[in-house]
Amino acid sequence: MSEDTKPSYKIAVLGGTGAEGSGLAYRWSRAGCEVVIGSRDPARAQACAAELMTLPGAGAVRGASNEDAAKFADIVVLTVPYAAQQSTVLPLKDALRGKILVDVTVPLKPPKVDRVSLPSTGSVVAALQNELGAETRVVGACQNVSAHHLKDPHHQIDCDVLICGDDAQACDLVVALTELAGLRGIHAGPVANSAAAEAMTSLLIFINKKYKVKGSGIRITGLPA
Amino acid sequence: MSEDTKPSYKIAVLGGTGAEGSGLAYRWSRAGCEVVIGSRDPARAQACAAELMTLPGAGAVRGASNEDAAKFADIVVLTVPYAAQQSTVLPLKDALRGKILVDVTVPLKPPKVDRVSLPSTGSVVAALQNELGAETRVVGACQNVSAHHLKDPHHQIDCDVLICGDDAQACDLVVALTELAGLRGIHAGPVANSAAAEAMTSLLIFINKKYKVKGSGIRITGLPA
Repeated sequence: MSEDTKPSYKIAVLGGTGAEGSGLAYRWSRAGCEVVIGSRDPARAQACAAELMTLPGAGAVRGASNEDAAKFADIVVLTVPYAAQQSTVLPLKDALRGKILVDVTVPLKPPKVDRVSLPSTGSVVAALQNELGAETRVVGACQNVSAHHLKDPHHQIDCDVLICGDDAQACDLVVALTELAGLRGIHAGPVANSAAAEAMTSLLIFINKKYKVKGSGIRITGLPA
Repeated sequence: MSEDTKPSYKIAVLGGTGAEGSGLAYRWSRAGCEVVIGSRDPARAQACAAELMTLPGAGAVRGASNEDAAKFADIVVLTVPYAAQQSTVLPLKDALRGKILVDVTVPLKPPKVDRVSLPSTGSVVAALQNELGAETRVVGACQNVSAHHLKDPHHQIDCDVLICGDDAQACDLVVALTELAGLRGIHAGPVANSAAAEAMTSLLIFINKKYKVKGSGIRITGLPA
């Protein structure tokens, strides 16, 4: 794809001051997207944005409140701890209407984060879709991508992104978005299927400890090259 | 490992007349294990065993009732549909005492088998461990391995086996067992973590359809070679 036709998206990363959110924000800014880091504390978001812009090849990154970030963007990415998932998003219901919400939430239950603890209702991403209603298209993604190497732009991250959502077009767009971040996105079914990716994160944390590695991941095999 | 020191196990495969069970049974028989195919219908089990013994390099395989198979073996492998999981195993509680039960059960919900449908209690393998009590060590394994190539002994199956159980020694043994079947087994945590592997099977079925492939699988990345 030539530079001229490269798609550019307006992306907000809510809870974007953490390692996963800021790493993804950096990669999308490098790829030419307009990125806003959202945080409960706008000053912290601005400081994080300023730091990202010192990294090699970083593009435009701003910091803002979660609400302002959500209003600005076409695509809103959520990278907050599970305990903050609904309290961060539900007050933004109006701002999110008509948009795509990429939810990276994993229901980890400290201190046993290496033990699967899906709620009895299943996927927490699907639960958020239920809360928001069909006007916001929620897509689960990136739950298995270790933050470890996201800020090294030349590191080829050896992990696929399982993309689960009920709207096929929204999923297509999130596949494109993961590719802009240097990752391979795989269509993995309806939003209910996000449960598998959410659960898998606890296994990867277990595997990291058991095998003394830092960023284990998953690959889907058997696909055409 | 030399031929002399190769470990040999007495393995029963309950529900072993299906594609997954008979494929695993064949591979273990080739590796020198004593294998008994179990079925509700002993005659069907015997016919299946006779057929397996015509395959290249097959070792000793017998057919028996599920109960006789479970009594014979040290390691009992369960490869039945979810609907038959508890009704197959619970009558064998006495025969399973002191043994390892490798549970391959996946809670698929026909006709939507490409949609995750874990019960509200989570892992169905963990539920079986609860039912059987600590005297039988239950280990979830092989849920993501497509049956497609199991009967081709030279096919290197491109899929890891996530091994989840509460007893570390039992998990070690199941890792060894998967290696005898030509697969890589990965310690993936307590039996509750089996939920991730059980859910993943629905994603792989979705991916097979979406990408028009036959046997997609998963690999864990980032581990030492």
